Order: sequence, then C-alpha cells, then structure tokens
Amino acid sequence: MENKEARCRASIGVFDSGVGGLTVAREIMRNLPGEHIVYFGDTARVPYGSKSKDTIVRYARQIIHFLQTQDVKAIVIACNTASALALDTVEKELDIPIIGVIRPGARVAVSATKNRRIGVIGTESTINSHMYQKLICEADPSVTVYEKACPLFCPLVEEGWLKDPVTKEVARRYLAELLDKDIDSLILGCTHYPLLRSLIRELVGDQITLVNPAYETARELGELLERESLSNPDEPPTPPTAEPYRFYVSDMAEKFGHFANSILPYDIETIQKINIEEY
Amino acid sequence: MENKEARCRASIGVFDSGVGGLTVAREIMRNLPGEHIVYFGDTARVPYGSKSKDTIVRYARQIIHFLQTQDVKAIVIACNTASALALDTVEKELDIPIIGVIRPGARVAVSATKNRRIGVIGTESTINSHMYQKLICEADPSVTVYEKACPLFCPLVEEGWLKDPVTKEVARRYLAELLDKDIDSLILGCTHYPLLRSLIRELVGDQITLVNPAYETARELGELLERESLSNPDEPPTPPTAEPYRFYVSDMAEKFGHFANSILPYDIETIQKINIEEY
Repeated sequence: MENKEARCRASIGVFDSGVGGLTVAREIMRNLPGEHIVYFGDTARVPYGSKSKDTIVRYARQIIHFLQTQDVKAIVIACNTASALALDTVEKELDIPIIGVIRPGARVAVSATKNRRIGVIGTESTINSHMYQKLICEADPSVTVYEKACPLFCPLVEEGWLKDPVTKEVARRYLAELLDKDIDSLILGCTHYPLLRSLIRELVGDQITLVNPAYETARELGELLERESLSNPDEPPTPPTAEPYRFYVSDMAEKFGHFANSILPYDIETIQKINIEEY
Repeated sequence: MENKEARCRASIGVFDSGVGGLTVAREIMRNLPGEHIVYFGDTARVPYGSKSKDTIVRYARQIIHFLQTQDVKAIVIACNTASALALDTVEKELDIPIIGVIRPGARVAVSATKNRRIGVIGTESTINSHMYQKLICEADPSVTVYEKACPLFCPLVEEGWLKDPVTKEVARRYLAELLDKDIDSLILGCTHYPLLRSLIRELVGDQITLVNPAYETARELGELLERESLSNPDEPPTPPTAEPYRFYVSDMAEKFGHFANSILPYDIETIQKINIEEY
C-alpha cells in the first residue's frame, strides 16, 4: 500500500524538442496543480520537425530512458512531431502510461467542427506523417482534413517575431490554401504555434475555431491518472510555487530558462544540462 | 614509399551540419579535381547555429572519428559554426591536418577591405564566438569588425525562398545596421548564405565586396596538401564524374540528395545514412 502511495507521489515526465512543450507543461500545472513534473527539452537536437521517424524514435527512447531514471509515473510527449512519429512505437515498449498531444488535439477538433472540414498546421514531419488526419478520420470518417506544413513558424517564434509583419506575411501564405477550403476549425499542430495565436486569429477571422491540443492533453492526462489510480493525493502548495517542477535540457540551459520564464507562471530557478546521448 | 603514395591517394574528409558545406565541397571539386572527398552532413542534428561550444565540440569529435574510419588524409570543417566553436579544440587532438572556413574567410576579407571596415554575418553561435573578429584583428589590428547574427537565413534557404520578398525584407532588417557602419566588405559567414548572394547583392549595392570563405578555403586546402606532400598525384578522371566523391548523412538521405544535386555539378548516386552517435 505504501508503494502504491509513493507511486502516486511520483512525477509526470514531460518532454519536447525544446521550449515548445512548456505550453503543454503550463496546462498541466494549471489543471493538475497537485502533480509534480520533470520536464526535458532536447535543446541540443532541436528542431525535430524536419527529422525522420527512425531518428525521432531513437531520440524518444533515449529521453524516456532518462525520465525513467527520474522515476516518473507517467509520460507526456509534449511535442507534435514526436507524438506523430514515435508514440506508436514507444508505447509498446513501456510499462507506464504515455500519451501524446495528437489524439487529444484530434478529438477536440472533431467535437468543434460543424461543417466537418478541419485544417491542420504543423512541422514538415508531423504533416508528412498524416497522423492528425488518421486519428480524426478514425474518430469521424465523415470529416475532411486539410494539412499544411509551416516550416518557418518555429524559427520565427524562436526569433521572437510573434507579431511581426514578416511573420504575418509568412502566415498569410501558409494559411491561404487552408482558408480556400472553407475549414471551420484549425489545429495548431506544433507546440510553438499557440505563441502565434493572436496573429493567426487576425488572419483567419472569428469564424474559425483555433484548437490548441495542450488544453485537451492536460485534461486527458488527468483522466488517465484517475483511471489508473495514479493521481497525487497531496494538497498542492499554497501559494503555488515552482518547487514541484524540475527542468532538464540537453544544451543551452540559460537560453531555455529565459524563454521558459516568459511562458510559465513561475520563474524557474535551476535547469540542469545532461548529455542525452548517454541514455 | 608505397605507404606515402597510398596516403596521397586517400580522401579529404569534409563535414558540415547539413547541406551548406556542399558549397565548400563544390569549390574543392573545382579547384582540386584530383582529390577524392568523403562528405558528412549531420542532418539529424542540424542546425548547429544555436548550439553551445560543448555540444558542437562533442559532435565534431564524433564526426572526425567517423571520418577517420574512412581513412581520410586531411579534414575540412565546412561549417562556420563548427569552425568557430570546435576547431581550436579538435586540432590539438588530431595527427592529420584540419582546417576550418573562418581563417580563410578572415584572410580574404582583410585583403579585400580598403576602408578597414568589415561586416560579418553568421549564425548566433558563430557571431557570439567573435571568432571572425579575433582572426581579422590578429591579421590586421587596424580593421574594425561589425558582426550581426541572422538566425532566419538558414530556415529561409532551406524553405527555398532564395529570391522571395519575405527573405529580402528579413535581409534588409538584418543588414541595415551593418550598412550604417559604412563597411566595404561583408563576409558571408555561414555556408548557407552564398545561396542568398544575389538577394544580398541587390540590397548592399555594388560597392561592397561579398566574401565567400568557400573559395579561399579550397585554395588553402590545396596549399596545405602541397606543403605536407599530400596532394593526390593521379590524373583526375576525364570527363569529370561523381565517382571520387562519397556522401554520408545522419538522417534524411533523400532530402539531402535533392538539395545536393541542385548545388553540385554532378548528380550524387548514393548517400549512406549512419548513426553518428555511435562514433
């Protein structure tokens, strides 16, 4: 019984290619304030969006191996590319629960759409995997999915040009063909894209629902923990602090910290750099 | 004596974070047609331009180790970031000659400038290393160097927007502060940037010399091989073919091949993918 309780007090492992997954971690912090988090950002090998399935699976295995050394009770792949390319493979190899962001995003888009025309934007690798399309059509075969890779969005976000006319022109071009298809819902299928939300909103108008899979992922994680009797029974600290959260990166901890503090509701105090290739 | 001759017939190892170094390989092919080349593009871990010295040194050591399994007689770091961050460290560990692109680029800029005001553009990591500034000032302390990181140039080149109005607007912003400094020479301090040459030329006008370190690197390699009695004595094949060149990548061989065939004068027939983390 003691073991079971200790298990419930273990952390959630959350990983991404870099900082983008912090938008998912933020939702977990908000929705499941009693849960501890170990976050890993693969800043040495970012971006994932132009890499192959083989490579992403190898990277995901190394990261999961690292997170298991931190004794996590469940894992969230807070990266669309890794969810699209690696989740199917690594979930078969694991004896703890693991979820990605794509199934939750697909599910909420299917509930949101009225005209059954959904747009998806993401990295090259996410779009080429057609994983959103697959999961949306499994949930509702009558939906038509239109996909578009937006490879310049991540570099523009990392440059900090969130409301810049250049970014707007790039977005206008990327989104034009989706808007032509009369979509009524658009999945922001990369964890960087919610940071471009207001710029995208200006371009697509008020009639299109913007779907951020991060919200739904945090909700699904909560349901999963309940179902598996893994929720942390402790009261969250009052007032909320950064204490239950630990952050690891594979490179450039300082730059990561700067970005993280602009996304998260708490200032991160320490970020540890590890050599992920050793895992 | 036989050993010495076999040594001269060995290949030159050339590496980069991805495809950019092919602009250097191309110059070696043109200037030293008798030399064989083993090229490695670290396409799994590209880009290098936002990574730390520790990480780039670790990656360079792995790649050099791989190239040594291919029995190369000399190595060219055909990547500005890796030349800036790793050359100093790895050259002390090697018993074969190794050169980067920064010293050649710095040297030719110093000969080109009349008003002793030189601009340098490159990745964040190259610019933050101030290696161009250091080597230029060693060559001529009276020169003033103005540096500017251009992090969006590589993604724009990889998106293929070489002559696009968006790219021109980004370049206009990046270059404005250098043009204000009245530079008369501008070093294209990233192997991707020569692909933006005509767009940059339009913005800076005819009065500024654009320095592409690739030319000078190939020339310095030729001098080095002569000096060390390592030049290949064989006649190059007539007509020229792709046969003496071998290509390895860490990911996405097909995409690399597509890009390579647009840069090189020969079509590449085979590209082998290796797991560079094992070296």
